[in-house]
Amino acid sequence: MENLPSAIISNGKTRISTPTSTHQGDAGKPEIHVHPQISGWFSEYSLLWPGQAHFLKVEEIYFQGKSEYQDMLVFQSSSYGKVFVLDGALQLTEKDECAYQEMMTHLPLCSIPNPKKVLLIGGGDGGILREISRHSSVEQIDICEIDRMLIDVYKEFFPDVAVGYKDPRVKLHIIDGTLFLNSVQRGTYDAIIVDAFDPIRPDHELFESEFLQMVAMALRPGGVLCIQAESIWFQSLDIEELLTKSHQTFKGSSNYAWTTVPAYPSGVIGFLLCSTEGPYVDFRNPINPIDPENHGISNQPLKFYNSEVHSAAFCLPSFAKRFSNAKATKRP
Amino acid sequence: MENLPSAIISNGKTRISTPTSTHQGDAGKPEIHVHPQISGWFSEYSLLWPGQAHFLKVEEIYFQGKSEYQDMLVFQSSSYGKVFVLDGALQLTEKDECAYQEMMTHLPLCSIPNPKKVLLIGGGDGGILREISRHSSVEQIDICEIDRMLIDVYKEFFPDVAVGYKDPRVKLHIIDGTLFLNSVQRGTYDAIIVDAFDPIRPDHELFESEFLQMVAMALRPGGVLCIQAESIWFQSLDIEELLTKSHQTFKGSSNYAWTTVPAYPSGVIGFLLCSTEGPYVDFRNPINPIDPENHGISNQPLKFYNSEVHSAAFCLPSFAKRFSNAKATKRP
Repeated sequence: MENLPSAIISNGKTRISTPTSTHQGDAGKPEIHVHPQISGWFSEYSLLWPGQAHFLKVEEIYFQGKSEYQDMLVFQSSSYGKVFVLDGALQLTEKDECAYQEMMTHLPLCSIPNPKKVLLIGGGDGGILREISRHSSVEQIDICEIDRMLIDVYKEFFPDVAVGYKDPRVKLHIIDGTLFLNSVQRGTYDAIIVDAFDPIRPDHELFESEFLQMVAMALRPGGVLCIQAESIWFQSLDIEELLTKSHQTFKGSSNYAWTTVPAYPSGVIGFLLCSTEGPYVDFRNPINPIDPENHGISNQPLKFYNSEVHSAAFCLPSFAKRFSNAKATKRP
Repeated sequence: MENLPSAIISNGKTRISTPTSTHQGDAGKPEIHVHPQISGWFSEYSLLWPGQAHFLKVEEIYFQGKSEYQDMLVFQSSSYGKVFVLDGALQLTEKDECAYQEMMTHLPLCSIPNPKKVLLIGGGDGGILREISRHSSVEQIDICEIDRMLIDVYKEFFPDVAVGYKDPRVKLHIIDGTLFLNSVQRGTYDAIIVDAFDPIRPDHELFESEFLQMVAMALRPGGVLCIQAESIWFQSLDIEELLTKSHQTFKGSSNYAWTTVPAYPSGVIGFLLCSTEGPYVDFRNPINPIDPENHGISNQPLKFYNSEVHSAAFCLPSFAKRFSNAKATKRP
């Protein structure tokens, strides 16, 4: 079995490491350049989560390749089903993708009445498309994914995820999300979901860039954004700051939610939910439940999401709650 | 730096492995005898979670020793603070112990009015004692811990956890929990918390043993039990069976709750909550909130628990909810 790449993330970029260094000496190189590796196991070691690593045993490698943009790896793990790795960082596992995709999609879409136009930025695997397809009110689903090869690899190895592309309402745009947003008419979308790479990072000045401003402009009044927002256990995550800044940009509700995703460092992942000025959006109390008979394009019922876990996702532990999840969410 | 022990768990028992085998050949020994190890890192590899391992970087080893019952290891990790390891299995980290101890304690105690007598079986670290001490209604706290050396090691290296022993209401019994229960008068306790080693396991016939019967007998009518109950992601966990069986034993409410504990495999851990026949206990809606001004013996406010996360803990993902969390919990 080959030695596998392992994630080293630096300044928001990732690269594949050479699998040579397995042990840090007591002196010498700083810790950040060293990470553990074992032949036959995939290890994810992120500089953002130093001093810990999650190992998955590899049964079989199905694909290794490099697109114009990134390195890809697909393998069969013993414990998480098939796994997709991008530039050394674990992206998706068959075991727990339901939690991430379903929450990422239905937290925003179940919070507003009759969503019709939805934009997905990133999310090239197709799982969020699969989830959007459960909403019969939706008429138009645009997705911007820059890497066509990524889509092809998912279609080949993860048909139950990429099935979302089969929904005839889906229109695929092979383009960078920011460029696409440039061309979007103001107030076009009811909901925008951003499933791009680790947007909330200490070194990623999301709120200093124009990206979120463009997202806010592309939403109708009372339209909603959902974007991945790290883990409540992440040391430098400041939820209060996140909610304050996003409220300044979006002017409506801003809330933080979280869910369990075992393959992610710390086992949980968070979501930032914002609405633009306009009809009030009460993210904590979903008003647009999913028809349990409508499985959309997947023909499978929901595995994870339900209205109870929707509301529960906004209940924060005291250490995170200090940063007042309610602050920016009160009725205007 | 020394090679560290790593967990191998077999038939509910644990042993320290020799750090020789780092890779499984394609044939030869069965997988269950092989687990990854790297010098300078602690690895937890449990047979109950095959094909995955969590690694923590070791900064300094503070203690390694063996009591009459078990091997102990205390080390400083880079990412989780101080860590306590028992027979190779990670027991407690400074970073996330708040989630486990606070939920384990306050889920039962906040669900009943005026708890006066509480029994803790296991939990020798003292953290649950620390949490019980926030409840001013409590008059008597009995703890059964079989291993005195474990208590001493926690007192030396984890003073903020073992602080619970300083509560004058605490009475320590160095005895096996089952033996202690034998001597307890029927209907003595308002609440019993079992923090013993991995009680819910496929090979651990908890419901075939007399242990839970004895716990039920030791509780007053409408008294409550809280016991650790694996992860919702654990393959062979059958929540419906768990609730049905526990309802047969306890006759009152039976509920399953869960919370985030990053250092645990899959990042979450569950709790089984049961009440005996008598006054109805609605575990999902706590009636006995903690006085935020009463920090008990610890002088620290709650880090994790609040009434919102209490109720949210009972909201199960759809894949687990199929096993009806409500079934055994409806009002009699």
